[in-house]
Amino acid sequence: MSIWHLKFLDTLSKKMVFGFILIIALGTLLLSLPVATRGGQGTPLIDILFTAASATCITGLTVVNTAAHWSVFGQLVILGMAEVGALGYMTFAVLLFNLIRRHRHMGLSTQLMVKESLNLENLSDTKSVMKYVVQLSAIFQLGGVALLAVDFIPRFGWRRGLYVSVYHSVMSFCNAGFDVFGNSLMAFRDDTYVILVTIVLIVGGGLGFLVWRDVLLYHERHRLSLNSKLTLVTTGTLFVVGFLALLVTEGNLACIPGNPTWINRVVNTLFLSVTPRTAGIVTLPTSSLHAGSIFLLMILMFVGGTPGSTAGGIKTTTFGVLMLQSIAQIRGKDDVEFSHRRFSQANISRALLLVFLASIVITVATLILTQTEKIPQGYGLEYIVFEVLSAFGTVGLSLGLTPHLSVIGKLIIILLMFIGRVGIFTSLYSLSKRQTKVSRIRYPEENVLIG
Amino acid sequence: MSIWHLKFLDTLSKKMVFGFILIIALGTLLLSLPVATRGGQGTPLIDILFTAASATCITGLTVVNTAAHWSVFGQLVILGMAEVGALGYMTFAVLLFNLIRRHRHMGLSTQLMVKESLNLENLSDTKSVMKYVVQLSAIFQLGGVALLAVDFIPRFGWRRGLYVSVYHSVMSFCNAGFDVFGNSLMAFRDDTYVILVTIVLIVGGGLGFLVWRDVLLYHERHRLSLNSKLTLVTTGTLFVVGFLALLVTEGNLACIPGNPTWINRVVNTLFLSVTPRTAGIVTLPTSSLHAGSIFLLMILMFVGGTPGSTAGGIKTTTFGVLMLQSIAQIRGKDDVEFSHRRFSQANISRALLLVFLASIVITVATLILTQTEKIPQGYGLEYIVFEVLSAFGTVGLSLGLTPHLSVIGKLIIILLMFIGRVGIFTSLYSLSKRQTKVSRIRYPEENVLIG
Ligand SMILES: [K+]
Ligand SMILES: [K+]
Repeated sequence: MSIWHLKFLDTLSKKMVFGFILIIALGTLLLSLPVATRGGQGTPLIDILFTAASATCITGLTVVNTAAHWSVFGQLVILGMAEVGALGYMTFAVLLFNLIRRHRHMGLSTQLMVKESLNLENLSDTKSVMKYVVQLSAIFQLGGVALLAVDFIPRFGWRRGLYVSVYHSVMSFCNAGFDVFGNSLMAFRDDTYVILVTIVLIVGGGLGFLVWRDVLLYHERHRLSLNSKLTLVTTGTLFVVGFLALLVTEGNLACIPGNPTWINRVVNTLFLSVTPRTAGIVTLPTSSLHAGSIFLLMILMFVGGTPGSTAGGIKTTTFGVLMLQSIAQIRGKDDVEFSHRRFSQANISRALLLVFLASIVITVATLILTQTEKIPQGYGLEYIVFEVLSAFGTVGLSLGLTPHLSVIGKLIIILLMFIGRVGIFTSLYSLSKRQTKVSRIRYPEENVLIG
Repeated sequence: MSIWHLKFLDTLSKKMVFGFILIIALGTLLLSLPVATRGGQGTPLIDILFTAASATCITGLTVVNTAAHWSVFGQLVILGMAEVGALGYMTFAVLLFNLIRRHRHMGLSTQLMVKESLNLENLSDTKSVMKYVVQLSAIFQLGGVALLAVDFIPRFGWRRGLYVSVYHSVMSFCNAGFDVFGNSLMAFRDDTYVILVTIVLIVGGGLGFLVWRDVLLYHERHRLSLNSKLTLVTTGTLFVVGFLALLVTEGNLACIPGNPTWINRVVNTLFLSVTPRTAGIVTLPTSSLHAGSIFLLMILMFVGGTPGSTAGGIKTTTFGVLMLQSIAQIRGKDDVEFSHRRFSQANISRALLLVFLASIVITVATLILTQTEKIPQGYGLEYIVFEVLSAFGTVGLSLGLTPHLSVIGKLIIILLMFIGRVGIFTSLYSLSKRQTKVSRIRYPEENVLIG
């Protein structure tokens, strides 16, 4: 995994971590102003910090109700943080790969490979990358506003209708999960149109900039990169499998009260399979779901979306590579192949290590929260594990723990959202003291028994 | 991971899988006899199969109470299956590595490395290996009988005292978890002596034959293999960390009724940290424990014991290698080192793949069980996950689901115990159609984004 050990990664990782901390600090400051809350009643500092971290890390877990607690100013600060967090992160992802290809210690063939495989030829500086990211986001978000306004303006009038259209469009595309309805999308459970538009925005944001660029350039090149192909296939598979599994576990959402139409139940199930990756918007109370569905949501939250998108989790590519590796192993093949390409051993090792490190973070956090939080009657351990996975995957779904978190619990969840957003590897790189020289002694190799 | 792809692995894996199936079939036949049950009332076939699989795979999950349901003949059949399962598996582990070193396609240096690193020079044929395994087991088990008899004979009289001493000694050393007391070790909660003897037997069996041989030959060689060192350090660390964490989560077992002494509480906590790896004997009802403790037990069950021992799980070496790999990554090092040796990339990849495959098996099984089983009031998802981890790790602990399992549930748990016992890799090898020729086309390498 030599390309990951280059020095510039340090600098970029530290810049990114620092950038996110700066936005959270600024947001905390703005949300502390009396004008940020309704009636100017103020908010405890830990809750302000939590909200700022949740918005910047585009998670959407809330300790106070966004619609009831924050003023329009406060709500717009939250919107701003989510937008900056989302676009900033997507820009970072592109810059990272641009840096890799421009790095002077890297051989020409590797440079060409990265350039070729990610279609980044015309994006050589920060400015042009940001421009492209902003353009793509603007198209999606403005389109979303227009489509949502058709429903929301007749419903809420011009002023409020436009406001909620903008808010919901941005929060959906950014996979940020905050809402100004007071109860997420639950009031729109029977509004099939709004749910479908939301799904398109969530998936659009969750596919990520690099894949979109690849898809948009397809008419020129007539090929997709391995990264895009794997992303699209994994996303599609998870979409179909998750949807079908949730249809089974929920019995096509028999739990919905009233008598919704068959098609409305299906669309709500579809939404349920999309929201854990990693939108965090709900049309149903998550805690009302079947144990099997909650388990499925936990898996989907852990996997998350695409690298370089607004989504969190271990990412679809990681999951895809590991599934292909497992299949290759089962079929007795040494090479892990996909679409007439094979994955490098370093690539596979990195994916496996990521999953292992993520598991450690989730385990330790869960263990601490079992000591600091109280599980209410009728819930088990999943009450806490779900919250941890939601924070780490920057999803924003909850079985109800968030508003009841202790101060230590809030700090743990803030840390999880942060690590989940900047990524485990980036977090590690920003912490590590790089050894620029190779250690002089290299020990002899020896194997231990595995399995 | 070329050494794992050699043809003889196929043969040995198929032999092992076949061997276990044969023992289960024979046990099922014997337990079907009227004389196997008390009063000859007979047992449903699925429950007989479950018991035979649980005994052969030395798990200890029971759908019927061993003491109340089975006659002495039935109990002895179960004891026999556990002993054959445990010794058979340990013998297999040694044969596997003997085969590796004798394999003619393997270079001399690799042969010497395996020979050297596992101290197997004098164990060249099945007979001598089995002799060594039986000798070691006999010393431990007879020692256990003697130590337990001191307590049990005065308590139960000669006849019954000797019977329960033998039964408990064998089941503890084999990490098999069956008991003829009717309620595991719960009646002996305040008998510090019996608990300590049981801990020694469990740890002795769980360390495994290869480590013991290495330790016993230390006076001649004055060095331990990397495998033994890593096993001992990981086992020790998990022991200490698990014990301390359980002291915290349980508040030194404040839940024990009556007024046990401080030392008795500590010994019971110690036992609690030992039993999930992978003995399955309890001194307390598992369901009475704190949520944090249950989570800790689940982690310890997942890790399990040492390769080639009576224990299940992903194994201490796997866990140790992955922890060292994570630490190396955090410290920015390319080599994963331990005790002046470094691990090969193939070794690390194999460990990571094992954990990933284990996670898939556990996830799929949990998902199916959420559909077929009913979670009682007051429990959450952990009611099912705990059972799955217990079966896959061949531990034998339960939050109470086992006797209530549906027929499909029982079949799933049987399959999990089987895969857990023979190992995921062995299961895969026995299923796979090996490609003896290398595929002609090797695709070009390309990377995808991870994390
Ligand atoms: K989110
Ligand atoms: K066991």
